[in-house]
Amino acid sequence: MHNSYEPGIRSKVKRAHQRGRYDYESVHAALDCGLLCHIGYVIDGQPYVTPTLYWRKGHLLFWHGSSASRMLRRFHTPQPACVTVTWFDGFVMARSGFHHSVNYRSVMAFGKAQLLRDKADKNDALDALMERVASGRLTHLRAPLEKEIKATSVVWMEIEEASLKVRDGPPIDDEEDYDLDCWAGVLPIEARILDPVDDPRLKAGTDVPDHISALVGKVL
Amino acid sequence: MHNSYEPGIRSKVKRAHQRGRYDYESVHAALDCGLLCHIGYVIDGQPYVTPTLYWRKGHLLFWHGSSASRMLRRFHTPQPACVTVTWFDGFVMARSGFHHSVNYRSVMAFGKAQLLRDKADKNDALDALMERVASGRLTHLRAPLEKEIKATSVVWMEIEEASLKVRDGPPIDDEEDYDLDCWAGVLPIEARILDPVDDPRLKAGTDVPDHISALVGKVL
Repeated sequence: MHNSYEPGIRSKVKRAHQRGRYDYESVHAALDCGLLCHIGYVIDGQPYVTPTLYWRKGHLLFWHGSSASRMLRRFHTPQPACVTVTWFDGFVMARSGFHHSVNYRSVMAFGKAQLLRDKADKNDALDALMERVASGRLTHLRAPLEKEIKATSVVWMEIEEASLKVRDGPPIDDEEDYDLDCWAGVLPIEARILDPVDDPRLKAGTDVPDHISALVGKVL
Repeated sequence: MHNSYEPGIRSKVKRAHQRGRYDYESVHAALDCGLLCHIGYVIDGQPYVTPTLYWRKGHLLFWHGSSASRMLRRFHTPQPACVTVTWFDGFVMARSGFHHSVNYRSVMAFGKAQLLRDKADKNDALDALMERVASGRLTHLRAPLEKEIKATSVVWMEIEEASLKVRDGPPIDDEEDYDLDCWAGVLPIEARILDPVDDPRLKAGTDVPDHISALVGKVL
């Protein structure tokens, strides 16, 4: 039984290869921390990169959007895609320009993506997205309408290859540079959910529910 | 004289087209706010999406990396690329699943990218990157070595088409849903630079300089 993606020609981390991981546990844990990905796809030789929300189930990644979207229509038939999820964790300030770097975590996942056609699967997938973004919210919402499900496309991709690449910690300078009178270190970056802003048309007397309060302050 | 990118087949915002802008001022202002982009490129029909820092000068975008990087070697000859910069500004919580959305700003820029070959141009470009990330830092660093410049590749791309797409504000629900007892609104998201962390090997007595302090608290 496999417990790791096979590092292939697309996913093998070549530079700074000690930064690469392929085991399911690490790759899936990272994917489950993220919400926003960038999808790479090709139309007539031209690459496109579209940001969107994604979610994972086993070795499958999902994303969704309007059925009218160019990006989603592209996956009418299975097409090669690259799903990249990136956390920009900090600037690494070294003592030479050359050793400046960025602390980050990044997953690149490769596979063939295609539209999810089965209606029940599509319903389940959209429920899973809502549960992923705001667990417990589904029961507060009115049921989806037939026309809304029709107007929404869901794409799925089985992960064929994937890697997680991580750079963290302080700068790594040339040994002789550590004696320079130059400040060096890391400027961390953090993305966080702030306090909720009521819809100006919110019905009077509607409080912020627990499933929303629970998200405030969350680091993404 | 043009003051706008021509919306072309690659860049024209088709869905929610009122969200799209093409004028130089809006596109460039957005590009100058960002630091991290996702580069889309194609090798043997397979799309790749690589996160990296970028910077802009006029209608040119630049990015850099190790000369050994697969992504950068790809641009030995001019190749079509897509540069996407995204700010994930918040979750938009509506009264139906269908009207949930994301507040975001996103630039997609298209062109042909290639290596910057001229040595002086490359030096200038790398200086511009440092100035972009931490204005004033260059004078604190030792001069770059010949071998360091050689080991670094810079890629440039003239923007042929570009669009800025923005979604902001509260949810837009179906008129009849505004009366439901369901909290609706926005959960804003913010990415911010935190306090600097000294390199554990920092030379004793080295204070955090002004060009670093100036970045603390900055929203990215």
